[in-house]
Amino acid sequence: MTIKEELVNYRDGDVSCEGFFCYDASRTGPLPAVLISHDWSGRNEFAARKARRLAWHGYAAFALDMYGGGKQGKTTEENQALMGPFMADRATLAKRITAALTAVRGLPQVDAKRVAAMGFCFGGLCVLDLARSGADVRGVASFHGLLKPNGLETKPIKSKVLMMHGYDDPMAPPEEVLAIAKEFTAAGADWQMHAYGNTVHAFTNPAAANPSFGTVYKPEADRRSWHSLLGFLEEVLR
Amino acid sequence: MTIKEELVNYRDGDVSCEGFFCYDASRTGPLPAVLISHDWSGRNEFAARKARRLAWHGYAAFALDMYGGGKQGKTTEENQALMGPFMADRATLAKRITAALTAVRGLPQVDAKRVAAMGFCFGGLCVLDLARSGADVRGVASFHGLLKPNGLETKPIKSKVLMMHGYDDPMAPPEEVLAIAKEFTAAGADWQMHAYGNTVHAFTNPAAANPSFGTVYKPEADRRSWHSLLGFLEEVLR
Repeated sequence: MTIKEELVNYRDGDVSCEGFFCYDASRTGPLPAVLISHDWSGRNEFAARKARRLAWHGYAAFALDMYGGGKQGKTTEENQALMGPFMADRATLAKRITAALTAVRGLPQVDAKRVAAMGFCFGGLCVLDLARSGADVRGVASFHGLLKPNGLETKPIKSKVLMMHGYDDPMAPPEEVLAIAKEFTAAGADWQMHAYGNTVHAFTNPAAANPSFGTVYKPEADRRSWHSLLGFLEEVLR
Repeated sequence: MTIKEELVNYRDGDVSCEGFFCYDASRTGPLPAVLISHDWSGRNEFAARKARRLAWHGYAAFALDMYGGGKQGKTTEENQALMGPFMADRATLAKRITAALTAVRGLPQVDAKRVAAMGFCFGGLCVLDLARSGADVRGVASFHGLLKPNGLETKPIKSKVLMMHGYDDPMAPPEEVLAIAKEFTAAGADWQMHAYGNTVHAFTNPAAANPSFGTVYKPEADRRSWHSLLGFLEEVLR
């Protein structure tokens, strides 16, 4: 195994973005690829760690950059300021993540036909919006993603969808679960929802320890969702 | 690998039951065990096939007999007549499946401390009721199980619970999903629900092909739920 890591610049119009690319150079390519969409704090070490784990499993992993310039927030206020404009303009959000998809497809190590995407919290919403845009991507997997509808024109969803969800997540209550089930069924999606009881937001993040904010690490749900992810990637990319 | 199969008689009061027991005799025991609870048609070949697959994976698998004498229905009417009394008397149902748990614990090949249970359709309800009874079993897994509450006194649920569910199952509509999530959360259960979109009842059964009755085989959900089951058994029994 020869894990390589590099920063890759790509553009969305005027905005220069900086992805973190990681793959096993000892494997015969081109490799199936997985986009990793960061949480509201930006393309952070958490996303890079997931990329390394996926590289170990044989995927070309690309931690994308929604904010441009590899920007990261350090406080709740900074994170909110970075995420807010995208939540308010979901068309721009879809355009930004589509630029990452185009970028990863152009990398020489990547098999452009075998690409999936995954994301955490805000990043979960980003990959769900990628699916909602009708993107030709094999699968998208959301970890404690926000489920709110994008308010844009409905398109047929071509990618398989796996949502992994803390049932007590205050940022994605049961009525939004019911709504997205209805929306994705109507869009013809091959979708799954794995809901974990007694689990709130950010359950994959060991640093999450804020019950009053609704963000708490839950090792059982972290392990179970990773197991589900690997099965899903195996299904859609092999 | 030396897969052994045998019929095992056990009792629930006056009723003599006949389980199908299957395990790999070449493995060093005692083995972790999995009870398999049949659908409404009785302890059939479908349950036996699942037992053989689990034996291959290293579990002592016991396809239990809810109806006694290994009885099987051949028509919808016969199945309804066999299942009906248990649906009407959930305390008797719990007693009957508990007898199977006691029986499997007494088998010399079985590690009595490492037992889980799984079931299909009516059998899914049976294993959920086993968990609801407060049984000391490591985990229960339900495939397109009926979700209806048992109306009995609430007890703390000690076993981990995995429900695999067709989201369009007419026998377990969204309101029952919401209700069981609430019930199991209140009972302190470590529960998961894996819901599959565009999927109805009986999705694991290749013979199910009756859309108007709401029973249709779905190979994707069959494979995905089996993957989830194996991860779950690994988690609770190893």
